[in-house]
Amino acid sequence: MFKVEGTIENQLMALGIILPQASEPAARYANYIYSNGLLFISGKGPSASTKGKLGQQFSTEDGYQFARQAGLEVLAVLKQAVGRLDNVLQVVKIQGFVNADRAFEEHHKVLNGISDLMLDVFGEKGVHARSVMGANSLRDNLPIIVDTIFEVRMPVNDSL
Amino acid sequence: MFKVEGTIENQLMALGIILPQASEPAARYANYIYSNGLLFISGKGPSASTKGKLGQQFSTEDGYQFARQAGLEVLAVLKQAVGRLDNVLQVVKIQGFVNADRAFEEHHKVLNGISDLMLDVFGEKGVHARSVMGANSLRDNLPIIVDTIFEVRMPVNDSL
Amino acid sequence: MFKVEGTIENQLMALGIILPQASEPAARYANYIYSNGLLFISGKGPSASTKGKLGQQFSTEDGYQFARQAGLEVLAVLKQAVGRLDNVLQVVKIQGFVNADRAFEEHHKVLNGISDLMLDVFGEKGVHARSVMGANSLRDNLPIIVDTIFEVRMPVNDSL
Repeated sequence: MFKVEGTIENQLMALGIILPQASEPAARYANYIYSNGLLFISGKGPSASTKGKLGQQFSTEDGYQFARQAGLEVLAVLKQAVGRLDNVLQVVKIQGFVNADRAFEEHHKVLNGISDLMLDVFGEKGVHARSVMGANSLRDNLPIIVDTIFEVRMPVNDSL
Repeated sequence: MFKVEGTIENQLMALGIILPQASEPAARYANYIYSNGLLFISGKGPSASTKGKLGQQFSTEDGYQFARQAGLEVLAVLKQAVGRLDNVLQVVKIQGFVNADRAFEEHHKVLNGISDLMLDVFGEKGVHARSVMGANSLRDNLPIIVDTIFEVRMPVNDSL
Repeated sequence: MFKVEGTIENQLMALGIILPQASEPAARYANYIYSNGLLFISGKGPSASTKGKLGQQFSTEDGYQFARQAGLEVLAVLKQAVGRLDNVLQVVKIQGFVNADRAFEEHHKVLNGISDLMLDVFGEKGVHARSVMGANSLRDNLPIIVDTIFEVRMPVNDSL
């Protein structure tokens, strides 16, 4: 795994990644909360127009792309929270909820979409712990939701 | 969002909320563990006699009420852990497991039942990160289980 | 609950437990990440050749054994992370994803398999918060995956 040189913002440019605006929470909660060195980010999926289940409407390869898209949403929230992504000290934990058929078995390959993104963007600091399960249904019939925890340096004050 | 004045216990009274006794864990675990500034509370649902799935036996509106009831159970455990609810510094994270039909899409509206409760009780400190998924089944066929993390000041010693 | 005397390694021997080698992550992530006093361990299941759902191919009693096996995998990762298991200060949180039929209701009894193991091995330090849900499917059709957090003393440096 390579060590990312220079700023993470430069790394994003080198990767050709343009972050979206942080999406609004789907209901009455915040995009993130900072507590005790850890940033807890709310569940994020790919764009709301993507609807369907893995193993039914979507293939594992589709799911990989959706997980990557969800990861870009997470990065947008991260930037909203910490200002510069260089304030991210470690990707700590990713949980994936995959909206999947009962016979689906490739959840881990789907979640690689966000794992690879984090490794590309953060290098060594992008290595993380992970778990994934197959949901029976998700809000708005999203194909995947990711729930993430980061170790960060908060620039000024807490999340609010 | 209003700032809660006075004690949280007064706020509970103003809201007409009487907390239940903290329920016993359903099996061989503790209601909560305190570690490094964070209180990890075990999964809690509404009363054990409530059984069924969202999108089948229950509507989204039913689910909202069940999520609120689960939130009251969480508050009871919080009080058991920290003595006075004023020792709660921040609601950090809520994960919701909604026992739902495979076609259900309103998990976020269900989870608002506990989110609104936390905002009503704690004001700004009640803002939290959140995620929710649709379970295929839950213990005792409960309609919802919530898994929560709080930043707290522990009054005397650790959780045991 | 008894207080474990002597080293945890002696306790393992007294229990007749021989830990497996830590299994490799199923995809592009690490077995664990240490951050701010907490060790986040990636999702672990029983051996990869065990495939099927609770309430279909497997009974609750089978599930209890699978949860215990998953717990042994977690202990192996713990040892990999902290060297001596005496560096574990507290089992903090266990989340269980049980691959279960939609009519299954005994997830908590299944998860006791890992809870009992943690209590046997760590005594008071093994008491933990817990939650469990029924997944519609899991990677490789594993019957259970556990996602765990521990409070630990890291012997030398961080997880990488």
